[in-house]
Amino acid sequence: MRKKISVPTLRRLPRYYRIVCEHLERGGEYIRSSEIAFKLDVDETQVRKDISAINYSGKPKIGFNAREFKAHLEKFLNLTKAKKALLIGVGNLGLALAKYNGFKKYGLDIVALFDIDPQKIGLKVGDKEVYHVSRLREKASEMGIKVAILAIPEEQAQKMADMAVAGGVKAIWNFAPTFIEVPDGIIVSNQDLAADFVVLSMKLNGQQV
Amino acid sequence: MRKKISVPTLRRLPRYYRIVCEHLERGGEYIRSSEIAFKLDVDETQVRKDISAINYSGKPKIGFNAREFKAHLEKFLNLTKAKKALLIGVGNLGLALAKYNGFKKYGLDIVALFDIDPQKIGLKVGDKEVYHVSRLREKASEMGIKVAILAIPEEQAQKMADMAVAGGVKAIWNFAPTFIEVPDGIIVSNQDLAADFVVLSMKLNGQQV
Repeated sequence: MRKKISVPTLRRLPRYYRIVCEHLERGGEYIRSSEIAFKLDVDETQVRKDISAINYSGKPKIGFNAREFKAHLEKFLNLTKAKKALLIGVGNLGLALAKYNGFKKYGLDIVALFDIDPQKIGLKVGDKEVYHVSRLREKASEMGIKVAILAIPEEQAQKMADMAVAGGVKAIWNFAPTFIEVPDGIIVSNQDLAADFVVLSMKLNGQQV
Repeated sequence: MRKKISVPTLRRLPRYYRIVCEHLERGGEYIRSSEIAFKLDVDETQVRKDISAINYSGKPKIGFNAREFKAHLEKFLNLTKAKKALLIGVGNLGLALAKYNGFKKYGLDIVALFDIDPQKIGLKVGDKEVYHVSRLREKASEMGIKVAILAIPEEQAQKMADMAVAGGVKAIWNFAPTFIEVPDGIIVSNQDLAADFVVLSMKLNGQQV
């Protein structure tokens, strides 16, 4: 187990990764922390601290070798080994997540979809089939899936989380606007979009954050 | 302008608000920081620090009066005065955001939708009409909208951001997986879902965060 890294730092690292990838795509070779800081609107000192926290360093006055830095981030963030995930809820949000092409690059591979609506069962979204939630446990264990994404209304969230856990899922990415209870050892990440908006709203009000 | 508050604290406050609301809905009167900490899986010390940072305090051994605490959070986070927003991109993600009922409680009121697809123009999503993006500037200024939500592919993000800014928008909530450049004084919040996933993924790998 590696040394503790703060959540804010961890949240910024994939953003550095995106900037470095875009830099390489444009034919860039070296990238400076000042450029990363400018694009993300964070302090340059913070960028340097974050990068040093993952034991990487650039060359004085030249910056980071983008190709090497990209490889370092991929290794640190485990981006190359995709995690298979199942997605519960094929509504608008579920469809948006299932169709989004950018997740694979960040180590997320949605391999199976689930819904309770009989009209959706058997449909295909890209190459992914929609199964009835009653098959969740069977499919999760058959496919060795450890991550579940909940894109369902809050009333169903706890029940679906329970079914996912029964199927062997170890981590839940919860988009339902409610808290779910899980056994010890199961990881839950609540994607509370309304809460994310509040940060923007406070900045707009002139609050220094 | 109030004193600086850290982004991690600010991100937690709306979650405290949700817990306090749920507590009141269940008929609860006082709520302890330990209960909040348990539900959010954060340190109790952190919860106390955050709440003290917004100049609120509970009663020793009893906890926080939930009704008062809720009112304090509403005032601090400006939740009662909804901000009007326009949403650009009526795809799956855009529809999910437009239909989501929970935003108003957090001070976000999506009042107009925009798309480039002629087949979508004039449609209604709930009580919101879909306009062509060419009317963005006119509508934003007519309705006095200061917030734009971008739910579009990355190729269109910069162009749509420019149009929103031209229409008088001061803050952009960007769901497109790319960085956009805006004039000084315009606030951008990048909702990078793939990056959010990485935090969960690292925890699943046993990384202490």
